[in-house]
Formats: sequence, structure tokens, C-alpha cells
Amino acid sequence: MSKKLVKNGVGRIVPTEINGKPAIPFMGLGKHRPQGKIIGPSIPTCLDYPEDGDKTLPSLKEALIKAGLKDGMTISTHHHLRDGDLVSNQIFKISNELGVKDLVWYPSASFPCHEPLIEYLENGTIHHIEGSMNGPLGRFTSNGKMKGVGILRSHGGRVQALKDGEVKIDIAVLAAPTSDKFGNANGQQGQSACGVLGYTKADALFAEKVIIVTDNLVDFPCMPMEIEGNYVDYVVEVDKIGIPEKIVSGTTRITKNPERLEIAEIASRFLLESGILRDKCFVQAGAGGISLAIGQYVHNILRENGWKIQVGFGGSTKYMVSMLKEGTMEHIMDAQAFDLDAVRSISENPNHHRYPVFNAYNFHSKGNLNSMMDLSILGATEVDVNFNGNVVTHSDGYLLHGIGGWQNCLHAKNVILPLPLVRHGIPVIRDEVTTIVGPGELIDVIITTFGIAINPRRTDLLEKMKNSDLPIKTIEELKNEAERICGKPEKPEFTDKIVAAVKWVDGTVIDVVRQVKK
Amino acid sequence: MSKKLVKNGVGRIVPTEINGKPAIPFMGLGKHRPQGKIIGPSIPTCLDYPEDGDKTLPSLKEALIKAGLKDGMTISTHHHLRDGDLVSNQIFKISNELGVKDLVWYPSASFPCHEPLIEYLENGTIHHIEGSMNGPLGRFTSNGKMKGVGILRSHGGRVQALKDGEVKIDIAVLAAPTSDKFGNANGQQGQSACGVLGYTKADALFAEKVIIVTDNLVDFPCMPMEIEGNYVDYVVEVDKIGIPEKIVSGTTRITKNPERLEIAEIASRFLLESGILRDKCFVQAGAGGISLAIGQYVHNILRENGWKIQVGFGGSTKYMVSMLKEGTMEHIMDAQAFDLDAVRSISENPNHHRYPVFNAYNFHSKGNLNSMMDLSILGATEVDVNFNGNVVTHSDGYLLHGIGGWQNCLHAKNVILPLPLVRHGIPVIRDEVTTIVGPGELIDVIITTFGIAINPRRTDLLEKMKNSDLPIKTIEELKNEAERICGKPEKPEFTDKIVAAVKWVDGTVIDVVRQVKK
Repeated sequence: MSKKLVKNGVGRIVPTEINGKPAIPFMGLGKHRPQGKIIGPSIPTCLDYPEDGDKTLPSLKEALIKAGLKDGMTISTHHHLRDGDLVSNQIFKISNELGVKDLVWYPSASFPCHEPLIEYLENGTIHHIEGSMNGPLGRFTSNGKMKGVGILRSHGGRVQALKDGEVKIDIAVLAAPTSDKFGNANGQQGQSACGVLGYTKADALFAEKVIIVTDNLVDFPCMPMEIEGNYVDYVVEVDKIGIPEKIVSGTTRITKNPERLEIAEIASRFLLESGILRDKCFVQAGAGGISLAIGQYVHNILRENGWKIQVGFGGSTKYMVSMLKEGTMEHIMDAQAFDLDAVRSISENPNHHRYPVFNAYNFHSKGNLNSMMDLSILGATEVDVNFNGNVVTHSDGYLLHGIGGWQNCLHAKNVILPLPLVRHGIPVIRDEVTTIVGPGELIDVIITTFGIAINPRRTDLLEKMKNSDLPIKTIEELKNEAERICGKPEKPEFTDKIVAAVKWVDGTVIDVVRQVKK
Repeated sequence: MSKKLVKNGVGRIVPTEINGKPAIPFMGLGKHRPQGKIIGPSIPTCLDYPEDGDKTLPSLKEALIKAGLKDGMTISTHHHLRDGDLVSNQIFKISNELGVKDLVWYPSASFPCHEPLIEYLENGTIHHIEGSMNGPLGRFTSNGKMKGVGILRSHGGRVQALKDGEVKIDIAVLAAPTSDKFGNANGQQGQSACGVLGYTKADALFAEKVIIVTDNLVDFPCMPMEIEGNYVDYVVEVDKIGIPEKIVSGTTRITKNPERLEIAEIASRFLLESGILRDKCFVQAGAGGISLAIGQYVHNILRENGWKIQVGFGGSTKYMVSMLKEGTMEHIMDAQAFDLDAVRSISENPNHHRYPVFNAYNFHSKGNLNSMMDLSILGATEVDVNFNGNVVTHSDGYLLHGIGGWQNCLHAKNVILPLPLVRHGIPVIRDEVTTIVGPGELIDVIITTFGIAINPRRTDLLEKMKNSDLPIKTIEELKNEAERICGKPEKPEFTDKIVAAVKWVDGTVIDVVRQVKK
């Protein structure tokens, strides 16, 4: 593990080496600049590929063997099949059967359906995970059981790491709802349709070998080609790549919880009074219950004023689709679909565009969409009095969530976190967050039912809101109120063992997660 | 110039060094394998780009200066504006004004409108051209006046050279009929609409700096984003990037010449009898007069048999669009549009797809479309008795054409060259071509009004046609007939000076062009 520990730019003690490779500590926003050239995979030649374009192989096992699967390789997957993914576990089942050891899994996200991988983490087939360690995999990691150190990255950070050469994918196994034999593929059609395949672009560009696994092999050309066959080595047809009812998640439901609805209502009033919500603004909103409720209030404000959102970015939902249809949203930029309406809409609405995280989120790019957003509405497990945010661990110290696009979305012009003051009897506003995932400089407003805390750096917003009827408070006031309700929370106890590192969007280490002491 | 000359795999004497850089002689089909990794430009960071996504600068001059324009740089452009391009000449006019010297111009093709560049080739602003030297630029080159050695590459070879690191683009200046301020751009809309922007993809990926020049700046997001703003450094708005009536070329007219119509008729009979033309076949045809005439005959055959072409690839034309509409063509794969109907169709027909040369033509790829084509119909300035083909020089020795996609299309399963036996009183079939651009192994059939010569390697085709009424001849018979008509042609006289090198699709040197002796 780490040889040397140093205090980084947000005061956290982080290693300068992780899994035997050098790691750069976070030194503050905008302090790290990447060096060198973008290095891709080996230069291929058509000499090695069938002239008739037929790259099909009879099984994933054969494809993995042909791709040269061996000890220590990095295997990537995407999460567009969400909790219905039937492919990722297969890869490691086969690897285990073949006796391959010490693989690194590089998913764009993990889900409860990946719990069976614990067997392969325990027996050494998988050395560690770089991506997200959700739910059971997170708990396993927090208990100190993973062989290597897990690395948590944002969706954009996953692309940045490939572009920087921090991670080299040996084999990308990309489940595709539709593909032709050449490997041109998309997510729109077929029994396992998931909408867009926005997370696959970096894998196709940077992986040494690319395997497409599909349950809907169609005649050439499969169009649109979200994955380009020119980057694909092998195509495998299987019966089923996913469980349709689990591919589309159940998260796109507006909250019915009265406190959360109240937060949403306060938030939408704040957005209007502060001038953040205006005609032609660019909005990013998550698919969580509060975000969706805010969306509904916002929708009404837009209608009443005759305004429209110029660009809605996100995981796309039926709520965004209905705004598009009603004319209160001009464009949807879509990196992943959260429900069936969104899946259908991408094929039907010319203003519903594919917009991969590659283009929206990667910080090592010539600009991206994140910083163009006027408004980003995000969640957090904890926020502290310095406005630092945590999304990966709970207050009991357990790693239970991936970063997703959260760090990336912090680059919006206005970052708003509507939060309950207390969750499961534990204050959400803390003296210090358990894990710093986002630095406080980037978080602008915390909205609770008790009051709204504006980051003191945002003197412009404080000025705008000074005569508002809304309950503008300090972050300390919010914290004190939470502690008044449920007392000062105890800190979790950790061992010295670092079980996971949290990367910032530029590839530096902003914090670590330590093993939870039982 | 070249230090050492060697005889290559097709018996031509070629240099092992060109413009001070090592050059690999062609050693036969499939003999050269690329080494190493794909190396892109420097890793960028969002720190260097405006957060609001506005990358506009007031002038191309300012953009070139900001991009760091200096002596010896390689500047790339695309040719989608064809003979109506108003941008390329501007770049070198500005460079000249700034006193910059020894630039390399890396266009995807050149046109007569680029004749003014001769001034900058003469005064040392431009050192040499890598791409195509058409018409006046070719004559200038053949006269030995270019400072460096020109390098001719196919459209696919242009991508291969970037992927192999053979060429590094310092600044790509990409004219775009529509763009937003972030640099997302396409060719569909605006006063200078040219249809697709299929030649720009490699430039965006591999250039160190990318400048978009547009005359139609639209609100973000400009969709579809054929050029992705994430690869763009600066956006410049100008009054006009092109002359509309010259952007869409006049070449898409079916020949009225009786001999050529007869060739087309014989060719279409051959295609049917040989079984090459069949239901669901993949067809590439050029936009020349004979090709288009064949297309019309083929269209009738398809109709009569109730067949359809599964994939039509090419420069797209109104003839392909009408086949798509009539149902005799299932898909158009489009890398460049040749006429206004094709420009319009890409926006209107869901089965008219963008398919960049990056995906169709590059030999250093994981397969490509070329080798999947059943049929490729091509032209040539000369063919010899070994079926070697020439498309760059005329029989008088003058370099007058670029390679275009010709070498790439030779990888189709059946390559047919319908040719007049004699052109301007000079035989087209020769003992030896002036310049070998394509090796004879890849050219299958020569079709003339006098007879059809099948490459002896194609025993399958010879067998199929043995009872045909069509005039099957040997290539020598064709040559003898041509010489009977106009006598044995004299060979052009050259000096020893190599003025241009012709690259094969794998980056090796297949032949050179020498200075014409006056």
C-alpha cells in the first residue's frame, strides 16, 4: 500500500503511492496541470481483422481468451444496464474458471447486482476495483477485505484517467443492446434497450482490446454507431445481456415525503428569487426524489413566465422528456437514460441528443459542458461548515456510494444542494465531513426546511437575497439546529488501513477512505 | 532530399528519407505492420478554456497567433468546401503577412481554387504539401518548383499517417458551415452547407490546436456535433467560408458521351452476369460520368429483379438519394456530399448516415468498410499489363490529381475499372504505368468498349464468364488494340529530382513522381 503519507490541499492525509503506482495529492483547485501527450492503444492494422467485417465469436470466454486475458489486466465495463447487468459478473466468473488472478475491474459504476463479485474479490481473481464501490461492494471494501486499494473516480474522472494514461484498459467488455457483426453498436433498440451508451466512448477509444456483447445482432450497418466498429475487436452474441425491468431504474419518482417536498418548494423559490432560474438557462438536475420535485416546481415557473430551459443535461427522465415536448426545455443532452420514456425519446425527438460524459464531464478536455451549466442540483450524504461535500461514505464511515457525476457537476455556475437537515437521526451538516469528495469552494447553497445557507464566497447571492422572505441562515446555524434536534454525532472509528482513495476531477487524491473499526 | 534510393516491392526506385524524415519503402501487400501506440496531442485541461464555453476570437489571424503559429508547423484543412473553399488560402495569406516560413499544408484534397497558394510556395511560406496536388499545384510540383517533396496520400492514408504519428498536425483550421461558440460543428445548415464533414474527424482528434472558422454561428448546442467542441480551441466567425455554387461540384452528371455510355452498358452486363451484382450487395461508386451511368443501368437491374443494394458508400449523389427513396438502396454511408440533393438528404433520411473516412478508409484500424464492399467502380489515368493502376499523373508525366479514396477502394472484393481505351489520342492501357498508385493484385477487371480484361488472378471470374457473350479479352489484347489505334506512346522524360512521393495505405512509399524534363 502507500509508502508515504502527506497532508493535501484540503488538509486530508493521503498517500503518494496507491497500488504500487505514484499518486498526486490534491493541492487545491486549478493547481494540477496534466503533462505529456494523450496515449492511446497500439496502432491496429486491418491485416488482423476479417475483411468481410464479421468479428463474431461464439462465446465471451473465447473472446476473452483471444483478447489475451491474463493476470493483472484491467477490465472495463459500463453501467448502462444498471442493476439489470448480466455481463459484468460473467467476465469474472470466466476469469475465475480460467484461473486468472489479480484483475482490476474498471466499471463506470457498480450496482447491487454485482454483489456476486465478492467471491472473486475474496479468492484473488479481482485485485481491486477502480470506479465505484456501491452497497455490498462498498461495505466489503470498508471492512478492509479488498486485496488492493479501491479508487473512486467521478464519471468525468474516469475519462480523465484514461486520457492521462493513469489507467490503461487491457480489455473493455461493452454490453450493447444492438450491434452488427463489425461492432457498430448502440443502446436504442432490442430487448435490453437502455437509451444512450454515453459511458462507452472512452473505453472504445482507449482500450487495447474491445469486446462487444449483444443480445440483438443486426445487419450491418447498426446505426447510429454510438460505439464505432473500428475500435472493436470481437463481437459476441448471447441470449440476454440484461434484465429489462432492472435496466431502467426506479429512481425517477418524485418524492412524496412532506419534508422533502417542502425543501423542493423552498429551493424553487430560491432559484427564482436569486435570478439563477431564468429564460434560456442551462440546468443539470439529478434523478433523485428531491431533484425531480424541484423540477416540477421549476416547470411551473417556466410555464408561468413563458421561459424555457435552453439545455437540460443529465441522466434523462420522463420529466425532462415532457418538458421537451411541452416546449419548456429546448434541448436534452443525454449521457444516460433513467427511465423508459427517456429511452424512447432519444430515437423520436430531434432535440434529444446523445452527449457522452466524454464530452460533458472530462476535466482534461478543451472545456466541457459542466462549467457552462447555470445550475446544478445535487445531493450529498454530508456537508460540513466549510461547505465541503461528501457523497461516498455515510457518517458511520462506510463506503456505500460511487461519486457518479457529482464532482463534475460542482463546476456549474451555481451548485445547489437541497438536503434534509437530519437523515436517520443523524445530522447531515457536520463540523467536518467523513470524506471530502468536493471542496467547499465549489458548493454554493445548502437548502433545508430550516433555512438556506449561502457560501460566504458568494457575496453576489448574499446580496441578492438580503431582502428575501426566505430563511437565509449561516451554515453554522443549520448545523446547530441539526445538533439541537439529534445531538452532536459521534465520529466513526477507523483503523490506519487505507481501503480506498477518492480522486478529484484532475486525477489528484482529495481524500481516502479507511477501514471501519468494528 | 533523399539520401538513399532502393527498389521497392513493385520495382520502383524510392527514397528511404523524405523531407529529412525516414520513409519505409512498399514491400508488397500486407508486409508492413505498424509499431507502437497511437499518440494524440498534448493532454488539455479545462483550466485553459473559458468556463462559459465561449471560444470565439475576432479573426482567423488572432486565432492563428493564439494557436502559436510558427515556422515549420503543419497546418491541416479539409476539402468539404471543394472548389468554393474561401478559408485555406486565407491561412497562408495571413502566415505570409506574419512572416512565417516553411509551413507544411496538410489538406484532405486541393482544388483549382487553391492556385493562389503558388505565391506562398514560391516565397517559402509553404515548404511543401502533403495531401493532394491537383491541377495547377500539381503542375507547379511537376516542374520541380516546390521547396520540399510533396507527399500524396489516399483519404484513408491521411488518417493512417496521423494514427501512426507519421504526421503531426500543429494547427487544424476547420471550416464549418455551422458551429456554436464552443466549437460543436456540422456541415448541414447555413449558407455554406456542404452536407457531412467526414474528413474532419481525424484532424479534430490528432491536431494540437483546432480552429473552427464558420459563417453560421448558432446557439449552443450545435447538433449533430460532427466536430466535437471538446477538441476545439478557438472559433472564428467570418462573413463567408465558401462560394455555395462551387461547394457542390458539377461532377454529378451522367455522361452523354456515346463511347462512355457503351462502356457503362457493358460494365452493368458484366456485373450481372458475373454475379457480383446481387441482392443485398455493398456497392461503392464514384461520382464520375461513367460510374453514374453504370449506376443508372444498375438501378434498372435492381428494379427488374426486385433487389436492393444493402449499403451504398461514397461521395453521395442525387442518384444514390433517389435509390434510397425508391427502395433500391437500403443505406447510404456518406463521407462527403457531391450535390445539393445529397446535402439535403442527410438531414431528412434516417437511412442516410454520416460515415467518416476515418471509419471507412483507414487501413490502420480494426477493420474498415472498404474490404466489406462487394463492388468498387473506379477510374484511372493509366493501367498497365500487370493491372497496376495510376490516378495521379498523366502519361505526359505531369502530376495532376490527388489519390482521393482510390487506393482505399481497391480493397473491395471486386474492383472494376471501366475505362476508355484511348484518351486524348493516348492509350490508357500501357506496358507500364507512369506512376504506380495501386498494385495490380488489387485490380480485378478492366472494362472498355473493345473488350473486358479480367485479372488472371481472378480464376473465379474467368470461370464464371467463360461462356459469356461479352468480349472477354486479355489485358495485352486491350493494350494492342489501343496501340493499333494511336501507335505506341512515347514515355515522358524526367530529371532525377523527386518532386513527390506516393504513399500506400499502410504508410509505405509505393512510387515517386519525378520532375518533368522540359
